[in-house]
Amino acid sequence: MDFFYADNAATSYPKPKEVADSITNYLVNIGANVGRGSYKRAISASNTVYETRELLCELFNFNEPMNVIFTSNITESINIIIKGFLKSGDHALVSSMEHNAVMRSLSSLSKSEVDYSIAKCSKEGFIDINDLVSKIKSNTKLIIINHVSNVSGSIQKIQEISKIANQRNIAFVIDSAQSAGVLPIDFKQLNLAALPFTGHKGLLGPEGTGGLLLTNEMAQAINPLKYGGTGSDSSNIYQPDIMPDKFESGTLNIPGIFGLNAALKFIKREGINNILSHELEIGTLFLNNILNISNIVLHGPRDMESRLSVFSITFKNIDNSEAAYLLDKDYNIMTRCGLHCSPLAHKTLETYPGGTIRFSFGYFSNKTDIDYISECLLKLSKN
Amino acid sequence: MDFFYADNAATSYPKPKEVADSITNYLVNIGANVGRGSYKRAISASNTVYETRELLCELFNFNEPMNVIFTSNITESINIIIKGFLKSGDHALVSSMEHNAVMRSLSSLSKSEVDYSIAKCSKEGFIDINDLVSKIKSNTKLIIINHVSNVSGSIQKIQEISKIANQRNIAFVIDSAQSAGVLPIDFKQLNLAALPFTGHKGLLGPEGTGGLLLTNEMAQAINPLKYGGTGSDSSNIYQPDIMPDKFESGTLNIPGIFGLNAALKFIKREGINNILSHELEIGTLFLNNILNISNIVLHGPRDMESRLSVFSITFKNIDNSEAAYLLDKDYNIMTRCGLHCSPLAHKTLETYPGGTIRFSFGYFSNKTDIDYISECLLKLSKN
Repeated sequence: MDFFYADNAATSYPKPKEVADSITNYLVNIGANVGRGSYKRAISASNTVYETRELLCELFNFNEPMNVIFTSNITESINIIIKGFLKSGDHALVSSMEHNAVMRSLSSLSKSEVDYSIAKCSKEGFIDINDLVSKIKSNTKLIIINHVSNVSGSIQKIQEISKIANQRNIAFVIDSAQSAGVLPIDFKQLNLAALPFTGHKGLLGPEGTGGLLLTNEMAQAINPLKYGGTGSDSSNIYQPDIMPDKFESGTLNIPGIFGLNAALKFIKREGINNILSHELEIGTLFLNNILNISNIVLHGPRDMESRLSVFSITFKNIDNSEAAYLLDKDYNIMTRCGLHCSPLAHKTLETYPGGTIRFSFGYFSNKTDIDYISECLLKLSKN
Repeated sequence: MDFFYADNAATSYPKPKEVADSITNYLVNIGANVGRGSYKRAISASNTVYETRELLCELFNFNEPMNVIFTSNITESINIIIKGFLKSGDHALVSSMEHNAVMRSLSSLSKSEVDYSIAKCSKEGFIDINDLVSKIKSNTKLIIINHVSNVSGSIQKIQEISKIANQRNIAFVIDSAQSAGVLPIDFKQLNLAALPFTGHKGLLGPEGTGGLLLTNEMAQAINPLKYGGTGSDSSNIYQPDIMPDKFESGTLNIPGIFGLNAALKFIKREGINNILSHELEIGTLFLNNILNISNIVLHGPRDMESRLSVFSITFKNIDNSEAAYLLDKDYNIMTRCGLHCSPLAHKTLETYPGGTIRFSFGYFSNKTDIDYISECLLKLSKN
């Protein structure tokens, strides 16, 4: 192997081989649009799209495949919730570890109409539950929080926050960008209102895929972000209310969904618990190695109890961008330095505005990668 | 060949072989996200995405690659314009041949805030220019019209309408869903305000791709539809104004853009004039054949002077859906019957609410297809 990929939090790589094969199979052998024609190939394509909704239901313990909608990425899914669900006079509650997908959607709403509060987090990136509770208002309609941080890997106590939200009849939503496909997520048990997901990170599918699971109540309450042809109720110049069409205007990313379909079958075959075990094992190795390097500072949890394998570090002796540059140029190690679209998280971790260098591992990362990367980090720390 | 694909207006099929190859190459050999990391592979992926913007500029005679934004489909592009550009008190003008991408976006806006008028069209689907002019109001800010009908293939006189709009300082936009990649479109010469396009029809790329070309003025005037991480100006919890990031929140459909890149190179190599000639040649053959079948009624233009190869027909002796079913089952011919997400167009063509059976051909349709399909239609007409 001539490269070492440590940027799985940006997108997982490699993908299972069958992802590209499934896309090629669709493009070369099927090729029909879905929900439009009624010929055999169109039906075959529609069946695979539907099966993908079912695979997502199975993964997330959800039983309404028609309430699984496809979007182009989790940012779009989050926008649908924030801009479609929150109405004038509503209040939302987030944490100080949110990604800009949440923060910029919220900040795009007029402050005079929709207000929001930010629950404090510890320096390790964990939500201060007392602070969160204290910030709930009588008009709080939505709590949306990052399940696993894309900066520090910190896992939030979603079970506890779910209870708090449910007791008060507040819609509870988790941003699963970094957790879906690695940590088991149980839609029903968490009594989620909606689950936005991305297809190209832990779910191992291609970029351009993502989606949203919605309860019937939310599906009704949310106004779509996009309006247009759905292949259904075509005589109507108003958007139909039927699901999933209400939120799926225009032609879907069918090749992408075929790729995601193959990826979800791969995850099912491997078993999500095995995937998680592997990630924790790899993470433990890396963590133990870097904690022993004196010129490296780890930002975020110092054990694997409540984190995934996303690590933010800084060097005491080298600047972040120089280190990332050298890692790429001299050692073929791919990382991402900066603020990772999460300025609030970096403020929380006290790494703002300089940011960090992020190492994020996935199911295809192995011990050889970790050993090699750790060695290189040790060398750099002595620069 | 065991199948006859006549549904290119829904999506083109087959695609050039290099489309799937380019997607696989990205997924297998590159795999990095763009605009995030700064390592070699991330830069390589970014370069291809940028090159795709340049290829689109070249195709549409536009010189601002950073004002070419990618979306998941043309419906999203049209929503960005209609929902982002029109403000309270504005009036928009469309034609009675519009697709629901335009009609449902417009009808989603509050009538009390944004009003619109519909210019009449002839029974052949051509805009009545006098009627269009008479419906311009002092607050008309946007004229958006379907360049080529997805129902009848009728080509609108966009040059003439462009002059009318430009003289009055009204933003002029064409829905190029059925024309891009087949008819030359000159952004500058038409003095367009914006050009929404889809990647998977005439542009021969994969589903899940599309975009929007915007003048600087429009790029500033339009509010984004989606907000989130852009990999730029990360310290800001407000959406950045820089292009194309303002409109490209979240991870792009990179495999799709790689596929579109290959498709655009294919079109450039073949030459758009050759592509158009082929489509007109094929269309002429089909047109001549069906005009000779007594039980078939063609809806739309009866010559190839001002149309592309999208044909809507009905049988006098068989119901549309039965005919489409038999064409698929007995003859392996793929068509689409119904209203094609365009109820207004069908009202114009006087085929509402029954709809039509649509045959749409593309660059890979050949004389053998046309002869075979025509023969089968003749047989069905004698049923």
